[in-house]
Amino acid sequence: MSTVAFIGLGNMGGPMAVNLIKAGFTVKVFDLVPAAMQSLAEQGALTATSACGAAAGADIVVTMLPAGKHVRGLYVTDDSSKGLIDVVAPGTLLIDCSTIDADSARFVAKHAADKGLEFIDAPVSGGTAGAAAGTLTFICGGSDNAFEQAQGALNAMGGNIFHAGGPGAGQVAKICNNMLLSVLMVATSESLQMGIDHGLDPKVLSDIMKVSSGGNWTLDKYNPCPDVMESVPSSNDYQGGFMVDLMVKDLGLSQEAALLSNSSTPMGALARSLYVNHAKQGNGKRDFSSIFEQFANSEQNK
Amino acid sequence: MSTVAFIGLGNMGGPMAVNLIKAGFTVKVFDLVPAAMQSLAEQGALTATSACGAAAGADIVVTMLPAGKHVRGLYVTDDSSKGLIDVVAPGTLLIDCSTIDADSARFVAKHAADKGLEFIDAPVSGGTAGAAAGTLTFICGGSDNAFEQAQGALNAMGGNIFHAGGPGAGQVAKICNNMLLSVLMVATSESLQMGIDHGLDPKVLSDIMKVSSGGNWTLDKYNPCPDVMESVPSSNDYQGGFMVDLMVKDLGLSQEAALLSNSSTPMGALARSLYVNHAKQGNGKRDFSSIFEQFANSEQNK
Amino acid sequence: MSTVAFIGLGNMGGPMAVNLIKAGFTVKVFDLVPAAMQSLAEQGALTATSACGAAAGADIVVTMLPAGKHVRGLYVTDDSSKGLIDVVAPGTLLIDCSTIDADSARFVAKHAADKGLEFIDAPVSGGTAGAAAGTLTFICGGSDNAFEQAQGALNAMGGNIFHAGGPGAGQVAKICNNMLLSVLMVATSESLQMGIDHGLDPKVLSDIMKVSSGGNWTLDKYNPCPDVMESVPSSNDYQGGFMVDLMVKDLGLSQEAALLSNSSTPMGALARSLYVNHAKQGNGKRDFSSIFEQFANSEQNK
Amino acid sequence: MSTVAFIGLGNMGGPMAVNLIKAGFTVKVFDLVPAAMQSLAEQGALTATSACGAAAGADIVVTMLPAGKHVRGLYVTDDSSKGLIDVVAPGTLLIDCSTIDADSARFVAKHAADKGLEFIDAPVSGGTAGAAAGTLTFICGGSDNAFEQAQGALNAMGGNIFHAGGPGAGQVAKICNNMLLSVLMVATSESLQMGIDHGLDPKVLSDIMKVSSGGNWTLDKYNPCPDVMESVPSSNDYQGGFMVDLMVKDLGLSQEAALLSNSSTPMGALARSLYVNHAKQGNGKRDFSSIFEQFANSEQNK
Repeated sequence: MSTVAFIGLGNMGGPMAVNLIKAGFTVKVFDLVPAAMQSLAEQGALTATSACGAAAGADIVVTMLPAGKHVRGLYVTDDSSKGLIDVVAPGTLLIDCSTIDADSARFVAKHAADKGLEFIDAPVSGGTAGAAAGTLTFICGGSDNAFEQAQGALNAMGGNIFHAGGPGAGQVAKICNNMLLSVLMVATSESLQMGIDHGLDPKVLSDIMKVSSGGNWTLDKYNPCPDVMESVPSSNDYQGGFMVDLMVKDLGLSQEAALLSNSSTPMGALARSLYVNHAKQGNGKRDFSSIFEQFANSEQNK
Repeated sequence: MSTVAFIGLGNMGGPMAVNLIKAGFTVKVFDLVPAAMQSLAEQGALTATSACGAAAGADIVVTMLPAGKHVRGLYVTDDSSKGLIDVVAPGTLLIDCSTIDADSARFVAKHAADKGLEFIDAPVSGGTAGAAAGTLTFICGGSDNAFEQAQGALNAMGGNIFHAGGPGAGQVAKICNNMLLSVLMVATSESLQMGIDHGLDPKVLSDIMKVSSGGNWTLDKYNPCPDVMESVPSSNDYQGGFMVDLMVKDLGLSQEAALLSNSSTPMGALARSLYVNHAKQGNGKRDFSSIFEQFANSEQNK
Repeated sequence: MSTVAFIGLGNMGGPMAVNLIKAGFTVKVFDLVPAAMQSLAEQGALTATSACGAAAGADIVVTMLPAGKHVRGLYVTDDSSKGLIDVVAPGTLLIDCSTIDADSARFVAKHAADKGLEFIDAPVSGGTAGAAAGTLTFICGGSDNAFEQAQGALNAMGGNIFHAGGPGAGQVAKICNNMLLSVLMVATSESLQMGIDHGLDPKVLSDIMKVSSGGNWTLDKYNPCPDVMESVPSSNDYQGGFMVDLMVKDLGLSQEAALLSNSSTPMGALARSLYVNHAKQGNGKRDFSSIFEQFANSEQNK
Repeated sequence: MSTVAFIGLGNMGGPMAVNLIKAGFTVKVFDLVPAAMQSLAEQGALTATSACGAAAGADIVVTMLPAGKHVRGLYVTDDSSKGLIDVVAPGTLLIDCSTIDADSARFVAKHAADKGLEFIDAPVSGGTAGAAAGTLTFICGGSDNAFEQAQGALNAMGGNIFHAGGPGAGQVAKICNNMLLSVLMVATSESLQMGIDHGLDPKVLSDIMKVSSGGNWTLDKYNPCPDVMESVPSSNDYQGGFMVDLMVKDLGLSQEAALLSNSSTPMGALARSLYVNHAKQGNGKRDFSSIFEQFANSEQNK
């Protein structure tokens, strides 16, 4: 069984690394926070004193970082430090699971390719629950060969593994999906509320629309109207789930991508504005389905 | 078997009446266009010389008309003519299948109730193909009792029969659904095009999003990007399907409803503006998934 | 000097009637609220016991009512009561100063014309301050002849008197203007806040944009950013001025008009959604420039 | 009189350099296109064989380039070439008149400051006509001292000279203004068209709104409706003026800025989407007031 270097042990990265250990991989970890490494060590990981130290000698490197600049800085050598692509052994497979801008992913992939290394951008969805359960979805960009090689490690951490295309395609597909999701959430919210405003029962209306041409993921799995569906954030005061702040981050990435490609995304751009306003009103830490409250009458909210 | 009066034999009404005949109902028809009546007569319908003539003595009246003013004018007596509710026998069930504003539906329902008559607003979806095949979806507003009574006739013409609530609720639920649908179509189009602009294959991206949180009816059944899906309008130069002009009509009804209830529908309002502009550019008779072309590069369009 | 019947003595109508008295007109008033009539009587008005009683024998009728249905109901005879157009003397000039839907204005104008009477729709802007000072702006729809005849009375109540076109044109021009105004306010707010977010002084930025191609009425007269301009609502915690609820009403009228004419108004429709949400968050009674707070950071708000 | 190095002699830069010559400055020019330099030489400029060659020994450097990456690359030394800030004499004033992202402006200003040099970002508005006539508007970011020093050169090329704030503030103010302008143009277009759709004369409606609360720069100087105003692009088949493609560029910069500062700009984002769609339909080279045609009825367009 092969050795995996895992760098970035936050809320997502930590449980992902644990699942690799459970699947039988030798896992060598690094994080800037010692306690995060300590926790992994107790679950069977080896630890390193630097990212390069973890990566040197590994068969696969997996990274889980906050933003594009961290990924660029970690993989590619610059004035201040050596990059991972300059220290790993030939043939090492590089997998970045961060959600970042496509440009940064392509930048790292290109530098890796210049060294003869395969790099996959593999952003995930499924949240911390999916990370713990090993049921994450991975949307990958990279060569067929690299995608093939990555199957073992990705299957240890997730359920659905998609191959979206070449370098950067994983990031693009993820932000296309999440931009679309944000619009589904807003549009479902405003449609349900208009029904409520006309005296309809949101549960009945949801049941009708979900099997009609308005059907979408939010009606199936994540109804934004309180008490229509059990065990979703809207029925728990919008606690848990996927935070508004994270949706704002993804919508920022989607608009960045739209600017790069000169794409017009009126719905996605409007969703971003509505979510930014929602966050600024103090809802950043609540679930993103709380956008429903922007449309509800204030009496109804209470 | 009971007698049905069917008034309004257009592209939708004609085949609906035929399905009632096939199911064994005695059907007495009226339309302002003699040829439409003639065609039905050849398929076994009795004909009348006026709407009131058709309705007098029927057990059930079914109407299929263009707009709210026609429905109001037909059912309710005014200066110029007698209304259906003043000529039908006690106990006659009134079913209007037109897609109209909820206010008009409630207006007729109230006048009918004043006469002791049950009225159902039962707008359909499924298009002319569904009308011919007898697989329409009916979304009904009215009392439980009336909904129960209507089952026989509605089942003869359709597949899914929903009960959305009291009078007008069928119209409200339908326009909530169609408003949501319009947003799904625009948002799916812009998301797919952004993927294409970044070099992704729209078929691969569609396959990923449709099983992810971006999943929605348009990805499942009606992909707007040419050649991603077989046998949909986008793969046939946007011929057939549901015309842009009809979506503009439904979006007008949804905005009318939003004004009545003081509801905020930013996505639905934006979709209406985009569809009106699209229609004004000469696309009114094309399928509504042609909104995709607003986002595609003009080279790609050719 | 001629006799004016004035019907509707609210916050606007009351002071407008007073200005007619001051200008030397004989003014006969009616309002459903006795205290409103009493107040006018003390300032020299004659009172009537009904609207028809006030109008009978007047040279000019002026009305100031809340909505289209009131205007229709007052002027045009229906089942429940006689309309003004059936009781006034031949040659009486009818002037409605309410802000209502264009359709209602055209409806009354047509019924008036059928009786040989001239009707002007003359919605005002300028608020209660303008009504008191006699500096209102009137935007009129009606014939050239009627517009000419109305000059005396309108000049007694206002400063700028515009002739927008035939019947209904006054209402259309007013809502076109107010729709545009709402967009100016939102767009100026978001532009100023983006500057602030980048460290610019909103006063400096306002000074630059107001003499550049971004120049508009809100920068000149009604800056939405607190403390940029003296004596405007934004520098007084958004008290006074033009209430959000009134802007929501006008934006509703504008969208109603857009539906009637199949017009596409993406900016106006978006402004309505944003203002409705703003009102639902408890800002209905604040000045409409408070929409700025939707864009400001919450820290900055405090 | 001092010596100015002028780099970038395109449609804007060329005539600006000529105005500096006319004002008595010794002007040394460089452009990658020899013909552009030749033309300036004939009008009295000295020529250089490189940008650094032009700048060495100058009192003031003025640059006019297409995008942020060009400005960064020219001023700041990197692997491939020396930057201007490393070759100019101490005390040289650096003025960049390009319209670029604020981040690039701040980046160059910071590097200049590290070398003890003053840098001003001074984007212009006024188009090629203003460049030729010497009536450009400059919106400047930089220190008070640098702004003072720049007066002579800027006055030789322009009319209004604004000081928006510190480094980058010129760029921010310009894109705030142009974002606002784009919304004014769209909103004025849709308001005028809604009036037209209701039978109003756009000239009369424009006259009313321009002195009312809808008043804005486009109504004053640049009416988008054909034949309302003389000598504007809309009355000349939208030829000349400010191209749609340039507005798309500026709206891209504004959205980039909004992402950087986490600002919400729903109107500006919507304007960008509408302008991108308009450009993709083949209108990129037409004046930006041609967005009016998106709202006009197609018959009216012909």
